[in-house]
Amino acid sequence: MSSSFGKNIKIQLFGQSHSECIGVVIDGLPANVRLDMEMIERYMQRRAPGQSSLTTPRNESDTPRIVSGLVDGLTCGAPLCALFANKDTKSSDYDEFKTVPRPSHADYTAYIKTNGANDVRGGGHFSARLTAPLVFAGAICVQLLEMQGITIGAHISSISNICDKSFDTINLTAEELLKLKQKDFPTLDETCGMAMQDLVKIIAKEGDSIGGVIECCILNLPVGIGEPIFEGLESHISAAIFAIPAVKGIEFGSGFSGSKLKGSENNDSFYYDSQIVKTRTNNHGGILGGLSSGMPLLFNTAFKPTPSIAQEQDSVNLLTKENTKIMIKGRHDTCVVTRAVPCVEAAAAIAIYDLIREK
Amino acid sequence: MSSSFGKNIKIQLFGQSHSECIGVVIDGLPANVRLDMEMIERYMQRRAPGQSSLTTPRNESDTPRIVSGLVDGLTCGAPLCALFANKDTKSSDYDEFKTVPRPSHADYTAYIKTNGANDVRGGGHFSARLTAPLVFAGAICVQLLEMQGITIGAHISSISNICDKSFDTINLTAEELLKLKQKDFPTLDETCGMAMQDLVKIIAKEGDSIGGVIECCILNLPVGIGEPIFEGLESHISAAIFAIPAVKGIEFGSGFSGSKLKGSENNDSFYYDSQIVKTRTNNHGGILGGLSSGMPLLFNTAFKPTPSIAQEQDSVNLLTKENTKIMIKGRHDTCVVTRAVPCVEAAAAIAIYDLIREK
Amino acid sequence: MSSSFGKNIKIQLFGQSHSECIGVVIDGLPANVRLDMEMIERYMQRRAPGQSSLTTPRNESDTPRIVSGLVDGLTCGAPLCALFANKDTKSSDYDEFKTVPRPSHADYTAYIKTNGANDVRGGGHFSARLTAPLVFAGAICVQLLEMQGITIGAHISSISNICDKSFDTINLTAEELLKLKQKDFPTLDETCGMAMQDLVKIIAKEGDSIGGVIECCILNLPVGIGEPIFEGLESHISAAIFAIPAVKGIEFGSGFSGSKLKGSENNDSFYYDSQIVKTRTNNHGGILGGLSSGMPLLFNTAFKPTPSIAQEQDSVNLLTKENTKIMIKGRHDTCVVTRAVPCVEAAAAIAIYDLIREK
Amino acid sequence: MSSSFGKNIKIQLFGQSHSECIGVVIDGLPANVRLDMEMIERYMQRRAPGQSSLTTPRNESDTPRIVSGLVDGLTCGAPLCALFANKDTKSSDYDEFKTVPRPSHADYTAYIKTNGANDVRGGGHFSARLTAPLVFAGAICVQLLEMQGITIGAHISSISNICDKSFDTINLTAEELLKLKQKDFPTLDETCGMAMQDLVKIIAKEGDSIGGVIECCILNLPVGIGEPIFEGLESHISAAIFAIPAVKGIEFGSGFSGSKLKGSENNDSFYYDSQIVKTRTNNHGGILGGLSSGMPLLFNTAFKPTPSIAQEQDSVNLLTKENTKIMIKGRHDTCVVTRAVPCVEAAAAIAIYDLIREK
Repeated sequence: MSSSFGKNIKIQLFGQSHSECIGVVIDGLPANVRLDMEMIERYMQRRAPGQSSLTTPRNESDTPRIVSGLVDGLTCGAPLCALFANKDTKSSDYDEFKTVPRPSHADYTAYIKTNGANDVRGGGHFSARLTAPLVFAGAICVQLLEMQGITIGAHISSISNICDKSFDTINLTAEELLKLKQKDFPTLDETCGMAMQDLVKIIAKEGDSIGGVIECCILNLPVGIGEPIFEGLESHISAAIFAIPAVKGIEFGSGFSGSKLKGSENNDSFYYDSQIVKTRTNNHGGILGGLSSGMPLLFNTAFKPTPSIAQEQDSVNLLTKENTKIMIKGRHDTCVVTRAVPCVEAAAAIAIYDLIREK
Repeated sequence: MSSSFGKNIKIQLFGQSHSECIGVVIDGLPANVRLDMEMIERYMQRRAPGQSSLTTPRNESDTPRIVSGLVDGLTCGAPLCALFANKDTKSSDYDEFKTVPRPSHADYTAYIKTNGANDVRGGGHFSARLTAPLVFAGAICVQLLEMQGITIGAHISSISNICDKSFDTINLTAEELLKLKQKDFPTLDETCGMAMQDLVKIIAKEGDSIGGVIECCILNLPVGIGEPIFEGLESHISAAIFAIPAVKGIEFGSGFSGSKLKGSENNDSFYYDSQIVKTRTNNHGGILGGLSSGMPLLFNTAFKPTPSIAQEQDSVNLLTKENTKIMIKGRHDTCVVTRAVPCVEAAAAIAIYDLIREK
Repeated sequence: MSSSFGKNIKIQLFGQSHSECIGVVIDGLPANVRLDMEMIERYMQRRAPGQSSLTTPRNESDTPRIVSGLVDGLTCGAPLCALFANKDTKSSDYDEFKTVPRPSHADYTAYIKTNGANDVRGGGHFSARLTAPLVFAGAICVQLLEMQGITIGAHISSISNICDKSFDTINLTAEELLKLKQKDFPTLDETCGMAMQDLVKIIAKEGDSIGGVIECCILNLPVGIGEPIFEGLESHISAAIFAIPAVKGIEFGSGFSGSKLKGSENNDSFYYDSQIVKTRTNNHGGILGGLSSGMPLLFNTAFKPTPSIAQEQDSVNLLTKENTKIMIKGRHDTCVVTRAVPCVEAAAAIAIYDLIREK
Repeated sequence: MSSSFGKNIKIQLFGQSHSECIGVVIDGLPANVRLDMEMIERYMQRRAPGQSSLTTPRNESDTPRIVSGLVDGLTCGAPLCALFANKDTKSSDYDEFKTVPRPSHADYTAYIKTNGANDVRGGGHFSARLTAPLVFAGAICVQLLEMQGITIGAHISSISNICDKSFDTINLTAEELLKLKQKDFPTLDETCGMAMQDLVKIIAKEGDSIGGVIECCILNLPVGIGEPIFEGLESHISAAIFAIPAVKGIEFGSGFSGSKLKGSENNDSFYYDSQIVKTRTNNHGGILGGLSSGMPLLFNTAFKPTPSIAQEQDSVNLLTKENTKIMIKGRHDTCVVTRAVPCVEAAAAIAIYDLIREK
């Protein structure tokens, strides 16, 4: 392990891509809270496969079946368990990968870790399918944060070299974040979004895949959320975000580009905006000393290109110990970032809600 | 909290920049292990202030005083506690910052979090001084990893726009990593290192500061280290690395630049190198599905410029609720990356050792 | 929370007595282990209701439905989730208890804790029904311990004032422990067991209930299992045992009666039994300093009488804030110890397996 | 490990009986709280050795040296570290015990666990000396509980067969609990206390030791404290209490004697005492379903007789693997319960404060 996360709210994921079910147990929800199931469903749909020509044709309804913790729509203080059936599985697609690991997937490392007992079908427990229960748990945390006036949202910042506008790091509003959640393809700039979709289609035709970056923002966090040293906002958010398959980098505020700057350029000076302390710039991304500053919390997440591509690749046969070739026939997304936006929001919401409860 | 980290080895930090002591309790060390105190001292010295004209003139010997857990040089199975005295403190330098927070420091957020009770002297518990016990604990983990043949090392990858060579992601050797630890200014390219030092001196004269990036590598990790989903290597390492003050970004393998690539470019194909599975490229940075692949584990850490600069800055007075100016007189480093290399190694070693013990 | 337990193996329980399902997620199982499902079923049946005239007539098959973590009978390294359907629920029996709490049940405290949102049907999450997934998880830990040669077993030590023989604290064998698991009514002395059953029937006719004590033993633990101070065997086992509803006391070795003795009487002297260190007596119950000594680990668990009795009792109406009377019509066991033996074994096995993995 | 405890407040103990220091790090204290140092000192003195002819002559001032976390008497939100110097150590007394373990001590089990590296001097990390930092941490938690109107107190319930009166389980007042803390020998009945002291002196002259029981009460806990299943009050308190050396049993409310009763006898009926729900009897010891009921929380703790006695005992030589004799010359208490009363209060206060913070 661990497929669980959190201290004040505990998220325990389970399931493999082709097991009977996948699911999540959420322990530590406040009692007597009415869950907005429609809102949860919308989050599930934003993540769901099979929605458009851009995503994997695997078709799962992804309707959560809540088997405990909820009585007449209200949380009852007991752990909430939600199940998601795996119906549209084509396990035979994966027979070969047990012994011939797919490049840049977890097949090989999981095989060694488990002495060959890993469930290789669809990537098993390492499959991006596990982001379904993650998004479910995250959507609940998003609701709980919204009850406190906190809004979270994200957009596709770049695919390959096509870059969307960035969030306004000072004046971004909750309305803008919520509007993004209504979009099929969440970019700030529509034209840019269309260019990205065109590119993904071209890459798909080439049998290739492509990576990208998602920018996420959390608005209206109270000042002082986060814990010193090892449980600062950066530590806790990044631990949750790297749980999403294909994530390889994260940066807060000015991040890597800030490392090129001088202090006089990167520092954010304080001022009073009618009783409220604000900063004139927001290179710190809303986090100082691991604690929220009250300014918009901003971070970028880098996704590698989907490792599954429709091209012959070099691999090895772990039984015969010989080099071989592999051709992946399983269904896959050309670009994971198109479905990963709600995943990033979900993971961040879980991390932040967990830290808010610390207070 | 939490100023503690780890599940299989537990690192509890304590102390403030100007409290009587800072220190660390390490619980979970294996018993009957002889600690190489000289090696630990060398790590402490690499991090220590006052070594060169490039670093803060604060002079602390930083000799650990081990008060428990060690009998005749051998670990006895009980928690090891090491203390570091704070001697050269000039608390009067900090009187003002209690009410006038330094821009881009934790003064303001810590003030709100603690209802004004935070120890503002020298940054208190949020001070980079806390990396002394972190490096101490990390040096012990480095030793324990070395006993298993695992080597960890890092270099300054960039300061501002001056970039060192990158590690050879395939053929890097333990010798190269160990050689870096002997250097006063750890870069792969000496000329580049001199240029960096020249730049830092110029920036210092301007009363300004500058950020940078550190590249770190862990060699010879067994395959399969790391846990699924929330405790993968990326999650656990990043949670530890963000505990270092001024860190704002982390990326593994090809990271952010990998997000620009196609799958056919970024994928690392497998092959057998006489019974050992390797990859021909290493864009995955030695981590697949959160688990070690056996290839060199590689990551970059972005540091913001030191927020303390010798220039007047805008701030606020938290008592009078008025805008004001601040001039920081406390001692500080112009560029934290020059001392942060052993901190990155230490944090990574703690995270990795903790995961190795999971097995 | 927390409805989860363990550090090296994590047991997350979920469900309420009358929710769609109850279940458990077990994270941290070793991969590539074949589970003996028949043995698990036998454990489930020993705990199951409706077996005899002595137990509650509620009839649940209690067949676990394993929906993840198992591939072709082998653990695959991913969390194992087992579901148990709640079929034979009579929720209408419980309508009244929401506002009129049953004496010595958790109805009142759960009501206050959850602001009235608790699932009162059948006791909700506090029901002894939750011991079904506990026993399931424990049966797996019993298997994993048996693979290391460790045997766990228990018997009914007393019901009211009728006392069974005690385990031979020195010479007890694994065979004797295993034989107990075959018995419908697990006592060492058959005659005594029949007297107990007669008493339970009499008490049942009176519409009353009765408590008892279970003695449990773990044989062949390696020396040195357990962790210092807060995670000694006593701490960890008792934390798990008190998770079983109705448990109100635990004692290890000579326990409470040992507190009456002198050191010269209670001390257990060491001797060599052909290369193996043993003690001539076993008042320490196999635990010294929280660590296993290699002698049989022995403890007693006290169960209060079932709080549900078929007699009118005084209670309160939480809405009208008036005193009132209550008559409990729901099904219940006259004496919980008759079904609690596998629960005690299960809880102890989980605690011990968790500590063994620490090593 | 683990020598740490708690989730919402974290207590990390360190040190061995004869190491330079022992101490504790407390992480998670609320900021901006003034600690009453005199009250802490009184707790330390109640536990301290060398106070009377009844206790070990080892003389330690046990004055805590707080080296972090406190600024001008106020908690600053950073971990608080307190050190206790070990001055009056006579390590030579213990030379022999490394290879000839003292019966019923942890010498043997610690030796095996650490491959012979354990610090045997004075019992090392397993020494009751570690209760000094435990009591320090507990005294702080007692203060924090008192700020919420919660009072904790304990008395010696029995030594050998001499039994004090029991607490009034219904009408016990905070004044009575506080009065006990002023007594040198805390019993409810003075005559009984004198008889106990006479007995201890007689046993001491015999070179023997004796066990006893401590009864502890927590008053005015809000209703609903505690978490379901694995973190109920019984689980959490017992995990903390068993951290005290020599504890071998714990029971809540009617405990073991309640297991002899019928439900109609043991059940506690509810009634309204002017808007407040109370129970007419308190066999449940203030805990229902692991949650506080608002009635006095009551539990008994059984201590075994001090294993160190001034009589020759049988043991083994772990090097020569031969049977041998041992004569213990180190200083020790004839009866640990005389000093253990504040330890029980401390451990319970830590457990309860940790659970209260959960809310």
